[in-house]
Amino acid sequence: MAKKQVRIALLGFGTVGSGIYRIVTGMRDEIARREDVELSVARVLVKALDEPNTKIAEDQSIFTTNFEDVLADEEVSVIAECMGGEEPARTFIMAALNAGKTVVTSNKEVFAKHWKQMEEAAHLSGAGLYFEATVGGGIPVIRTLTHSMQGNNVESIMGIINGTTNYILTAMSEEGREFADVLREAQAKGYAEFDPTADVEGFDAMYKISILASLAFNTRVPIERVYREGISKVTKQDIGYAREFGCAIKLLAIAKMKEGRIEVRVHPTMVPLEHPLAAVRGSFNAVFIHGNNVDDVMLYGRGAGSLPTASAMVSDIIIACSGHEHRYPLLDANGDGNTFEDDWESEFYVHMKVLDKPGVLARIAGVFGKHQVSLASVIQKEPDSNDTAHLVFITHKSREKAFGAAIEEIEGLPEVSAVLGRLRVEH
Amino acid sequence: MAKKQVRIALLGFGTVGSGIYRIVTGMRDEIARREDVELSVARVLVKALDEPNTKIAEDQSIFTTNFEDVLADEEVSVIAECMGGEEPARTFIMAALNAGKTVVTSNKEVFAKHWKQMEEAAHLSGAGLYFEATVGGGIPVIRTLTHSMQGNNVESIMGIINGTTNYILTAMSEEGREFADVLREAQAKGYAEFDPTADVEGFDAMYKISILASLAFNTRVPIERVYREGISKVTKQDIGYAREFGCAIKLLAIAKMKEGRIEVRVHPTMVPLEHPLAAVRGSFNAVFIHGNNVDDVMLYGRGAGSLPTASAMVSDIIIACSGHEHRYPLLDANGDGNTFEDDWESEFYVHMKVLDKPGVLARIAGVFGKHQVSLASVIQKEPDSNDTAHLVFITHKSREKAFGAAIEEIEGLPEVSAVLGRLRVEH
Repeated sequence: MAKKQVRIALLGFGTVGSGIYRIVTGMRDEIARREDVELSVARVLVKALDEPNTKIAEDQSIFTTNFEDVLADEEVSVIAECMGGEEPARTFIMAALNAGKTVVTSNKEVFAKHWKQMEEAAHLSGAGLYFEATVGGGIPVIRTLTHSMQGNNVESIMGIINGTTNYILTAMSEEGREFADVLREAQAKGYAEFDPTADVEGFDAMYKISILASLAFNTRVPIERVYREGISKVTKQDIGYAREFGCAIKLLAIAKMKEGRIEVRVHPTMVPLEHPLAAVRGSFNAVFIHGNNVDDVMLYGRGAGSLPTASAMVSDIIIACSGHEHRYPLLDANGDGNTFEDDWESEFYVHMKVLDKPGVLARIAGVFGKHQVSLASVIQKEPDSNDTAHLVFITHKSREKAFGAAIEEIEGLPEVSAVLGRLRVEH
Repeated sequence: MAKKQVRIALLGFGTVGSGIYRIVTGMRDEIARREDVELSVARVLVKALDEPNTKIAEDQSIFTTNFEDVLADEEVSVIAECMGGEEPARTFIMAALNAGKTVVTSNKEVFAKHWKQMEEAAHLSGAGLYFEATVGGGIPVIRTLTHSMQGNNVESIMGIINGTTNYILTAMSEEGREFADVLREAQAKGYAEFDPTADVEGFDAMYKISILASLAFNTRVPIERVYREGISKVTKQDIGYAREFGCAIKLLAIAKMKEGRIEVRVHPTMVPLEHPLAAVRGSFNAVFIHGNNVDDVMLYGRGAGSLPTASAMVSDIIIACSGHEHRYPLLDANGDGNTFEDDWESEFYVHMKVLDKPGVLARIAGVFGKHQVSLASVIQKEPDSNDTAHLVFITHKSREKAFGAAIEEIEGLPEVSAVLGRLRVEH
């Protein structure tokens, strides 16, 4: 029986694009036999025809520097966008969708910012829009939400969804090193970008949790509603104290739905060592999902990289061509009625430097009490040479604003030299 | 727009069947809104009309003790089988498929034994056959293999896919207790069956790994080719020694494809504590999959239980009704040309009681050497009061048969009182 022929165009031929090419050409026969579809890469948009990766292709005529060549090729039915960045990616995706071509993308930034517009265009032209690779690289987190949790209300998601920051925090923790030192090394090795802001300050995780939360809660969760805090202020001292409390520090992206209120946040977080997320090391990613029926599910794997991300996109391409009707999961969800919680509850960790005098602890505890923040435990560290001591507190569950107000008042106490670290704790 | 109406019949109304009922009735509106399909439970086959669970249903007329009533109901398009056991489940499933009704099942035994026959019947009548719930309860492991790894050759699967044995091994490890003691308690609490053989001796895991391996390697891996060994011989001493080597003991179901040869086995296994599987506690399940492109993926969650398993079956029902063509992944795979490896390679742990005399260690090491089994490390324990000592060895990678032959010869040595424990080690 003749297999269905699917001709793909790639936008971008960097790490991910060349990975798709390798899988599609290297596994063409296996995929055709198992999936009844014969894939081929018919066009590749590159910046320059002599880009280094272009050498891997036998047929050099597939390369073009002109997007119009791709769009005009009537044999191309699927466009895989793996350029990254907002523009021109968004413009190209929109043009492809408007022309009725199915789009598969790994572009979390474009997706988080322009999902609605893209979905409307896709729906209008009947094109498909697939985005498994926008979150978690090769980890099937989007598919799990759309294909395996339909009989659930998702109550929470907690994810390690940025590999660079997890690599840095793991090295800080296991090698007792400081952030700046590990970051420099990661940049030298190519694990972190020259400008690391998008990873280190949590923008990348913010895009991804906005996508996950939207899908999980069946409504639009715009990036503007995601609280975001990066890892650049985490110290090796914080990591050491966290371990004394039986915890690791991870950059978590968190989304919760509680009594109709949505909270979405990205910040460094203390997690008990027994929690499966605490064991996720190096550049691995993991997403922990709680559904009202399925209970806890965790998905773990390579959150980035050429072949893992390409693997997710090839899956999307195959699903897109499998003959079912395309779905537009949030087409009618405007999110106008959403209520977002910005005064969420969690436990807190705080580390401060104080004068080593009698009565200081009592005074600080008094301020916490005044703001309804109750303390779960305290560690007092040996005084420094210059008559200062370190106090580390863990609170019981408190409200964000009450804790913030308490800290502000504590920072003003004459006995307190500095509040050096503060973190939220999740279980 | 009118939603698609899907009327479901349940075969069995125990833990899982009643879970499906709860989800379908409790989440009817959410599912209809999100998935464009309105589910209802139209018929339920029970053993007796006064079974305790029947009380949860408003409409008692849905219950019947006669399978023919279910089969004859033309409005029922999907039959969810959750009776367990081989018969009459197999007969009912076959009758349903022959009648063109789509079957969703959690029955690993029927599926592992009769997949081919069921798939052929389904294909012939155009019915669907869905089985996410046969392995890993609410964990989306089947869907990950079919919908998220199409661009991969799966090279290995290692899974903790039986909750009862993982519960027992966790309690033995964390509370320093013996197998029989923990099993009795688990039975009393209802975590283990009155006849625990299917779980404890690895039959349940054997069915499941046969299903996973067949799907992963795109061929038939019959249960007869699965090596099977249960956990009833694991002692708390083994667990203690394993920890000295930095390992946990888990009942792993393992499937590997190496140079065209398939190995499939279920046995207690030492796993390094850093491995994500080592951290899977209690009755949780986890499956670790390695694909040539996606690299490592791990899926973790509730491997059993009413709502988690029902959640997987509800997903299957929704996917079955989503309007795509049903797939029959192994229809043409007879597995006639498969080569199975029964002399696989692994590292080994062995614990023996020996006479506390000079030269014993050298003599034992000599026997290992003669059989080409090289030793990685040895622990010698303080002699007992009665002049016997304990020796614990870890070997380098060896062949199963060579190791077996060495142990047989060692058991015959006059200095060796007994070989008390032997385990395979995986990384």
